[in-house]
Amino acid sequence: MSSAEEIAKAAKTAFEESQLIPSTERVTALQRIHVALQSNRAEILAANREDLKAAQVEVDAGRMSESLLKRLDLDKGDKWDSMLQGVLDVASLPDPTGIVSYAKELDDGLELYRVSCPIGVLLVIFEARPEVVVNIAALAIKSGNAAILKGGKESNRTTQLLSQAIAAGLSHSSLSDTYVQTIQTRAEVSSLLALDQYIDLVIPRGSNSLVSSIQNNTKIPVMGHADGLCSVYLDESADVEKAVRVVLDSKTDYPSACNATETLIVHESLLQTTWPVVARALLEANVRLLCDAATLAALQAQSPSLPNLASLVSPSTPESYTTEHLTLTLSVLALPSLQAAIRFINAHSSHHTDSIVTESELSAAAFCRGVDSAGTFVNASTRFADGFRYGFGTEVGISTGRIHARGPVGLEGLVIYKYMLRSTGAKGHVVGDFAAGGKQYKHTDIQNAALPF
Amino acid sequence: MSSAEEIAKAAKTAFEESQLIPSTERVTALQRIHVALQSNRAEILAANREDLKAAQVEVDAGRMSESLLKRLDLDKGDKWDSMLQGVLDVASLPDPTGIVSYAKELDDGLELYRVSCPIGVLLVIFEARPEVVVNIAALAIKSGNAAILKGGKESNRTTQLLSQAIAAGLSHSSLSDTYVQTIQTRAEVSSLLALDQYIDLVIPRGSNSLVSSIQNNTKIPVMGHADGLCSVYLDESADVEKAVRVVLDSKTDYPSACNATETLIVHESLLQTTWPVVARALLEANVRLLCDAATLAALQAQSPSLPNLASLVSPSTPESYTTEHLTLTLSVLALPSLQAAIRFINAHSSHHTDSIVTESELSAAAFCRGVDSAGTFVNASTRFADGFRYGFGTEVGISTGRIHARGPVGLEGLVIYKYMLRSTGAKGHVVGDFAAGGKQYKHTDIQNAALPF
Repeated sequence: MSSAEEIAKAAKTAFEESQLIPSTERVTALQRIHVALQSNRAEILAANREDLKAAQVEVDAGRMSESLLKRLDLDKGDKWDSMLQGVLDVASLPDPTGIVSYAKELDDGLELYRVSCPIGVLLVIFEARPEVVVNIAALAIKSGNAAILKGGKESNRTTQLLSQAIAAGLSHSSLSDTYVQTIQTRAEVSSLLALDQYIDLVIPRGSNSLVSSIQNNTKIPVMGHADGLCSVYLDESADVEKAVRVVLDSKTDYPSACNATETLIVHESLLQTTWPVVARALLEANVRLLCDAATLAALQAQSPSLPNLASLVSPSTPESYTTEHLTLTLSVLALPSLQAAIRFINAHSSHHTDSIVTESELSAAAFCRGVDSAGTFVNASTRFADGFRYGFGTEVGISTGRIHARGPVGLEGLVIYKYMLRSTGAKGHVVGDFAAGGKQYKHTDIQNAALPF
Repeated sequence: MSSAEEIAKAAKTAFEESQLIPSTERVTALQRIHVALQSNRAEILAANREDLKAAQVEVDAGRMSESLLKRLDLDKGDKWDSMLQGVLDVASLPDPTGIVSYAKELDDGLELYRVSCPIGVLLVIFEARPEVVVNIAALAIKSGNAAILKGGKESNRTTQLLSQAIAAGLSHSSLSDTYVQTIQTRAEVSSLLALDQYIDLVIPRGSNSLVSSIQNNTKIPVMGHADGLCSVYLDESADVEKAVRVVLDSKTDYPSACNATETLIVHESLLQTTWPVVARALLEANVRLLCDAATLAALQAQSPSLPNLASLVSPSTPESYTTEHLTLTLSVLALPSLQAAIRFINAHSSHHTDSIVTESELSAAAFCRGVDSAGTFVNASTRFADGFRYGFGTEVGISTGRIHARGPVGLEGLVIYKYMLRSTGAKGHVVGDFAAGGKQYKHTDIQNAALPF
């Protein structure tokens, strides 16, 4: 048996055993992990410094980016403390399991309950930032899933010690210490992707190419934390102040986030009015504009009065509108109608989040229904697309997939349900009694149903 | 552009355009399809007779089974009428879209709504029975999804005419007549499985090998209507009458169904008591028993009094417990404890539906929580696992997958949700206002929230 198979089997066993352990024990486990992390702080941060040292060599040799190195540092600012606080925060969220979402009396003494429960074994693959190990472990444990985690190789020393602290915490609870396991190599990932009998969901957190390569190499379902190609559309009736505020915030608040806006669509009627005002605000914020012919001409007509025009504005190419810039660059185009904007967004966006600026309820409704994205916003920045801002208390990731979970995913995205059917009839229940001419199904709602067991 | 790509693109366009059409129009489309099918009855049944004639040649040559041929016949019994009634039944079900499942006020004048909506374009692949075309088309239209359907090649003439009637019905509504399309060849299926930019969900309805081969050849999510390896466990405290009724119904009510039971697990303490009584009932019902050493010995000890013992009872092999018999054959084994039964089921069942016969609340609770299947039943036949019996009004299929939808799937399984965020604030809403030291998120529940648009 390969080592990967042993790991996967141990995870499945840990998961199955945990189903008979009360969910309060999962909260206990998180508290114990918090303690274990605290007491191993010095050791973990020492390992992190080793990782940083090795990374610095790579950066000096030009084989690693400075920004990747920065993300490795666990001792920067309040990162360590907020990582630890995160464990307690997740522990105190409501239990997503054991919730009854459908309850019917099928017959006298025959009750059906649909009850939320964990998915099973998660394989989570992420890059660089070592604190994600702790974050994901907390989410998995809280939702009752076993997990196998693979971080970036640059943080191997750190994640190994974080993982040991997690196992130590688990071993002080009734959960198995193989409930959360860490792997180190890509070869192990490849082996695990073939083990669909043990692994129930793969969650890649990282680049689009990581997500894609995993989707192409497994039949295990993948919950994609994919790229964001978000857009803002300025409707014919857009209010100028709202347009400026929403576009500016969507683009500049945090340009490298997946919910930052990459494309601005301007209704043709605004080319000489709202558009130059918005453009001025963007140029003053040092945003580079890649413009189509119409939006470019409109700016050039006002050339003398606009700052940085020559240095920041240039013509777009078709690729501009399918590029996730992640920097202070915005692709711009004009379109003749709301319908054209909806079609353009559906064809070019990554179905993440798109926003309309409008004073018309009709336009707002058509945009929200017609744009086929996880988030359709009215007069609000695309940057609101976030699990914490939505009020979930945490975020597992953002899904641009179309089944199970869409948009920002909270703990709910880590659960599914099972059906429990209980007969309390004197003779049990059989379907033969409901054959033609026999009993009829009642299908009566059970009010305020709670978990039957 | 290949023909498959044209079909997929047309489906996506039809889907996107339909998002701006009120959902009542989908009901109209179903009524028009009902009319179109009625008025083309003679023509469709004539085509069906051609399919049957061709199939008879294959049966005579030994290349097709008699049972497959029977399933092709659209004029058998009340099949035609119930197919037509099914369209109206689906039309009259509650609309699964536009339902608000989460609504929060994030700030004064900033409201978030999670609204159910269709998934997009479905690719449904099924075998033999031509009426499935109409059934699936109705489910797709009702839930607002576009669909591409591929039936078995044996029913090509019939499905082509059914498909024309569906298109004719659609053309008398505001929906595009490419909202539901039918394809005929496996080559088209292969091409479509690569088009994840247009197709959002694949639903194979057929054999395990069909499901598996599709899962291995696409990165589009697959909602598996998979095989059923269901089991019944007779607990130490099982009531004899319930045991007999539940086991008999689970095995014999409809042996070729996926929710029929294939394995019986007997608690060791029942070997000399309940087990022979249950076995007698099974043997009288002509059920073949594949027994492990303990359950076999227990029967042989009572040999003279049991009917058909020599002809119907034989030793099991390890494969017996991973075989979906789909006939009047039952694999039987004895185990020493509830815990052992749970472990056995989790290792051998297809996670479809498993039932315990018990008088103990504790055993029932442990079984329902510990058995990792879509359905965990107490004193009830596994045959209850069915969308109609559960009260869904229809059944899209049964999923043994672990995300999105599990167990019998109703219309709910064909929808996902999107988030609509609406600012009614005087200046719109931007996240910059919520930065450190700024505004705080309110996250207040919106009571009785309805679709904002």
